[in-house]
Amino acid sequence: MNSKKLWVVGIGPGSKENMTLRAIDVLESCDIICGYTVYCDLVKPYFPNKEYLSTPMMGEEKRVAMALQKADEGNHVALICSGDAGVYGMSGLSYELGRDFPEVEIEVVPGVTAAISGAAILGAPLIHDFSVISLSDRLTSMELIEKRLRAAAGSDMVIVLYNPESRSRKGYLSHACDILLETIPGDRVCGIARNIGRDGQRYEVMKLLELKDADADMFCTVFIGNSSTKNISDVMVTARGYRGEKSENVR
Amino acid sequence: MNSKKLWVVGIGPGSKENMTLRAIDVLESCDIICGYTVYCDLVKPYFPNKEYLSTPMMGEEKRVAMALQKADEGNHVALICSGDAGVYGMSGLSYELGRDFPEVEIEVVPGVTAAISGAAILGAPLIHDFSVISLSDRLTSMELIEKRLRAAAGSDMVIVLYNPESRSRKGYLSHACDILLETIPGDRVCGIARNIGRDGQRYEVMKLLELKDADADMFCTVFIGNSSTKNISDVMVTARGYRGEKSENVR
Repeated sequence: MNSKKLWVVGIGPGSKENMTLRAIDVLESCDIICGYTVYCDLVKPYFPNKEYLSTPMMGEEKRVAMALQKADEGNHVALICSGDAGVYGMSGLSYELGRDFPEVEIEVVPGVTAAISGAAILGAPLIHDFSVISLSDRLTSMELIEKRLRAAAGSDMVIVLYNPESRSRKGYLSHACDILLETIPGDRVCGIARNIGRDGQRYEVMKLLELKDADADMFCTVFIGNSSTKNISDVMVTARGYRGEKSENVR
Repeated sequence: MNSKKLWVVGIGPGSKENMTLRAIDVLESCDIICGYTVYCDLVKPYFPNKEYLSTPMMGEEKRVAMALQKADEGNHVALICSGDAGVYGMSGLSYELGRDFPEVEIEVVPGVTAAISGAAILGAPLIHDFSVISLSDRLTSMELIEKRLRAAAGSDMVIVLYNPESRSRKGYLSHACDILLETIPGDRVCGIARNIGRDGQRYEVMKLLELKDADADMFCTVFIGNSSTKNISDVMVTARGYRGEKSENVR
């Protein structure tokens, strides 16, 4: 049996109540918790008697290698990710760098990603087919991001935008809206979920034309509805399908 | 303060350990649990002293209306959905039918949907931008489903297929693969996660050409990698971005 193990754990949006029981069990049973400084600070109050190893943003490879190294030395290590471990998370890099640590088994513990937790705050914006697209061009070209925005908009999928803007990427959300407006009418129902599961959590439902001028940062998740999405009393609600009007008759 | 409330709760893939603490708290505190028969049977062992109201498959509108009615009568009601409440779940219909029950407040409790829990079993297939597409044409035309498959494949997004086949929809996965093969090479890394979080959980990593002939049912979630997805020791791993090769050098 393999006794060396790295758990890659999605902690959800931040508070303990949004973690799965399995994530909590793993964090309670491990010796070392590795993660981005901000996420370590989030979970420390719930799991106080652990060794915390954190690296700042951009230090992803260092962080994952450090976690693998500690696991290889025989420690029970959890590498924590905000939201889910596999959506813009560290699980992929863990398997890639894990090839250098063949004795360390990797187990991914899924968590509630912002597309899911943000949707719950806004009401029911997803419901049907959707695309999740990051506006960060740190590792992906803007050309490819634009192509994906056009593809999702052109096939009437609900769109969820991660990393809409940051201090160094101002105007990205507005640019993305311009591309979407090539295909989607300006009155399309959209929404922003802010600080999901943390202090200052709030949401706004608006039109695509308003979204173009909205303030956004790295703590925002943005939703663009499909052609069936409605604003029902400031809640974003997408129909279950294009024959969904049936539901209104049957009711 | 509004005392009439309906909770729409995503229970994750099935076992209690994959529920969030918040979902567990809500189910523990409510009087009535409404849901599809199969999901009620899944949670009954964990929450035995509740009134269970279930309707069979296809009875979604009846089920939601029943839950709203019970909440309107002053009961604490949870309407449970497999995975997440907002991904092909009942939260949208709750808000739509909820217009007839203006005194009932609706709160959505998010859960781990199959795109997330299935990804964790397969390794790290998502990691970057992805599209979630259902192959069920019960409420959506096959023409639109095909358009979305082409859009996602043409813009190199990872694709997650829900409801790949059912007893009445044989051959749908094979048909979807034919459409994807118009754009995607036959050796593209793909995977199937079966019976996630339940008895008989297992996964297979294969090529797109093999996926075309694979057996699938309603308990399968299917993953089609993007051009950067690798098979690392039978684990499906997608790179973090197209400049991700950097990670190998930096390491």
